[in-house]
Parts: sequence; C-alpha cells; structure tokens
Amino acid sequence: MEIKNINVVKIGGNVIDDPTALYEFVRLFSNLEGPKILVHGGGKEATRLSKEMGIETTMIEGRRVTDRATLDIVTMTYAGLINKRIVAMLQAEGCNALGFSGADGNIIKATRRPAAPIDYGFVGDIDPKDVNDILIRILLEAGITPVICAICHDGNGTLLNCNADSVASAIAIGASRIAPTVLTYCFEKAGVLANVDDENSVIPLVTKENFKTLKDDGIIAKGMIPKLTNALDSASKGVKEVRICKAENLLNNTGTIIR
Amino acid sequence: MEIKNINVVKIGGNVIDDPTALYEFVRLFSNLEGPKILVHGGGKEATRLSKEMGIETTMIEGRRVTDRATLDIVTMTYAGLINKRIVAMLQAEGCNALGFSGADGNIIKATRRPAAPIDYGFVGDIDPKDVNDILIRILLEAGITPVICAICHDGNGTLLNCNADSVASAIAIGASRIAPTVLTYCFEKAGVLANVDDENSVIPLVTKENFKTLKDDGIIAKGMIPKLTNALDSASKGVKEVRICKAENLLNNTGTIIR
Repeated sequence: MEIKNINVVKIGGNVIDDPTALYEFVRLFSNLEGPKILVHGGGKEATRLSKEMGIETTMIEGRRVTDRATLDIVTMTYAGLINKRIVAMLQAEGCNALGFSGADGNIIKATRRPAAPIDYGFVGDIDPKDVNDILIRILLEAGITPVICAICHDGNGTLLNCNADSVASAIAIGASRIAPTVLTYCFEKAGVLANVDDENSVIPLVTKENFKTLKDDGIIAKGMIPKLTNALDSASKGVKEVRICKAENLLNNTGTIIR
Repeated sequence: MEIKNINVVKIGGNVIDDPTALYEFVRLFSNLEGPKILVHGGGKEATRLSKEMGIETTMIEGRRVTDRATLDIVTMTYAGLINKRIVAMLQAEGCNALGFSGADGNIIKATRRPAAPIDYGFVGDIDPKDVNDILIRILLEAGITPVICAICHDGNGTLLNCNADSVASAIAIGASRIAPTVLTYCFEKAGVLANVDDENSVIPLVTKENFKTLKDDGIIAKGMIPKLTNALDSASKGVKEVRICKAENLLNNTGTIIR
C-alpha cells in the first residue's frame, strides 16, 4: 500500500476514563480513512491503582513524579490495561491495531530527564529524531494501525514515563518523514477557546505570530500553553497541519488549526 | 531477510519471578541466531497484585479463574509490566523485540471456553489456524523479535486469559507455515526426568509411542502430562522439533526432544 498521507491522533484521559466516550471515539477513529496512528494518555486508572496499593501519588506542575513503584504502576496501566483495551476494541471495529510502548520495536527512544532542578524519577523526554520511522513505514504499509502509549525506554533496559502530548508530537514529526502528516489532539473542549466558558468561542487559527499576543493578553493560559507549544513545535518540524478539537469531532473539520 | 528457520522459545514463571535468572535468560535468548519468537508466562506478580488489591485468586486444576477484576490484573501484569520489562531488556541487548498480546495485530485469536463443566470466566482456548502467520512473516523479515504474552482476544473486543504453553505451541505451529520451526519450552528442570529428584535422569526422547508407556508406568505425571500433550500436538502439526530444557541450557542441545 502506497502511503500518501498519515493521520496521527492523540486522546487523553478524559476520553479514556469514560467507557462510553472511549467506545464512541474508537468507532470514529476506526472510520478515519488511510494510514493512521493513535497515541493515548493515561487517565485516572494509574492514580486509582496507586491508591489501592498504598503508593502515594506526587504531582509537580501537573507532572507525575515516577519512582520505581510508580513506574511499575504506569507501565501496567498505560502499556497493559488501557493499551490492550483500546487495541481489542479497535480490532472488533475491523481496524488492525497493534499496541506499542516506546520500547517495542524501539519505536521511540527517550532520554531520562536530569534530576535537577526537579527530580521526576523515571521520566523521559523525546527527541523526534529518535522516532523509528522505518518501522512505522513497514507497519503502515502492512495496513497496521500503531496504538502508542507514553511509556518509552532509554535503550539501556530502563522504561521511562513520558508526556503523551510530546509523544504524539514526536510521532507526527517522525511520520512526516514518510508522508504528509496531520496531527489531531482530541481533548475535552471544542478547540482553543477565546473564552474558556464559551464553547462557541473557538479560535480557528493559532500561528507562531498570534500565539505570543494570545499569551500576552492572557487568552491562552495554564495547560494550553505547553499543548500549543507542542503543536507549534510539530508544525515547525514538518507536520503539515495540527488540529485541536473535541474527540467527538474527530471526523469533521472543526476546532483550532495550528500552523 | 530470507527466513530459513525459526526458533520459538517459551519461558515460564520460575524465570520471570527471579530477576537474575530473567536477565541471564534474556542474554542467552538474544544470542540465539536467526529469526526468533519469545512466548512468556505470568509468574507470581499477578497473584501478588491481586492480594494487594484484595482480589481473591481462585485456581482450579492449576488454572486461574478469571473474572473481570482478575482479567484486568493479568492484562496489566502480563501484557504490561512483564512484557515491557522483557522487551526493554532485549532491546538493551541489541535484540529488536516487539511485545504482543494476541489482540495486537490480531496475532492470535482465541475462543472463550464454555462455562460448563467449569466456568473459568475470561479464559480462552486457541486453534493454531487462528495464528496470524502473515504478520509474523512481515515482522521476522524486518528483523523483529515478537515477544508474546498469553493474553489473547476473541476478535469482538474481549480479552481472554490463555495458557502460555498452548500459546507457544500454537505460535510454533503457525510459524511452521513460514519455515521449519523449533519450539523450546524452558522450565525449571533439565528436561523430562525419569526420576523427578534426579537431574541426571533426563529422558532424551519422547514420542507418541513411548508417551503412553511413560504415563502408564507413572514416570510422566501431573503437570508434565499437559506440557507433553502440547508438545506432541505441536510435533504432529508441523513443528520440526520440540525441546524441553532448563532456561540456562537454551543454547546447548541438552534436554528432552519430543517428536
């Protein structure tokens, strides 16, 4: 199968935590035509499991501090439970999904984050150059849909907990080396909103130019800043188009475009 | 890469539960030349996790009764923690491992076991015809080593807990459709022993013919009966050679041959 274009889609915890929303999403995703890749986040399952096992969850600036016990928990939850659930659901919809951690087929190598200024433990960062596009091409040509969680490895036997938005961005940049790639971030809002309480205030286009103004004016704040930084970074590194939208709008063209 | 022969190796819980033994095994396995596939069992991690989460473990005739909560536990443990640990270790040894549940790439489909006479819950049985040898060929040709756990799917979105020996047997039969295949079961003894207390009493060859006698004489008993039944079944369905040996003897030719 010749690859003319690739869709990379990222879903987050809000969809994963809601069985009905997840099923609806899987149904839409399986209807997306052509070669495609799904990247998924974690959801609340890891925190719930940690609690049941008496392991304390520490978050710093929205990031999970990952000691050895927590690494086991997130590996079990993201690479095991959630990944296999999604893969089995996609298979039932006729989509030939194949689940991945970054270690599998060395699809993404990560680098452990330095312990200073904040020691996040077994947490990794990704360079898009370390995405294995040779393997991705083989899989897509075979009609396979990679389903990738954010557990990566350092290549020396250690697994590392990574940020799913960054994994999606790196995968999309890697996929762009194969064919023109569109990256879609699905999240809980209709797009980047000018007024966070108004779903009708979607900002249609964010560019490097207006991003600064939107930040300075306080319209884009908090969690949207790293999300848009990731998106702009992807766009500047070869991804044809980045879109942020609601999961249920995956197949229509609503939301915010980032170029 | 042209595929001239394939090695399928199965390791069980005794190796998985011992970090040193697992590391040693991974090092040996990565030195096995040519296309290869690893199938792994579960170990005690699932039982330990169930206990910590207050979920009761019920075993009937050595098989785990798998209700919904237990299915989640074994999926997390086998397809998540253990599978990714092994994959990361193999990657560090320069072996391009890629982890699988049966759902991934639909590599093995299973059928849920009937609820009578014993209701094992989400437990599946495998027909070797349901092994996806087309995908296995693509992976082996690409220099990839599949690492397969015994969590399969029914193709309709449900994961099923299967027996790892049966998965190894089915995979080896499926691989035999690609190239001559040797199946090696690694376990805690030096082979099938005539005297269970004497490691020097390895029976060199078991065939359909002497199996009956060995059973009738009580030399082969208990857990060895299903293991050898699986092995003989594989041999009768196209697997070139089946061997049962100690994990540490993987690279030498000791142990019991089943033909």
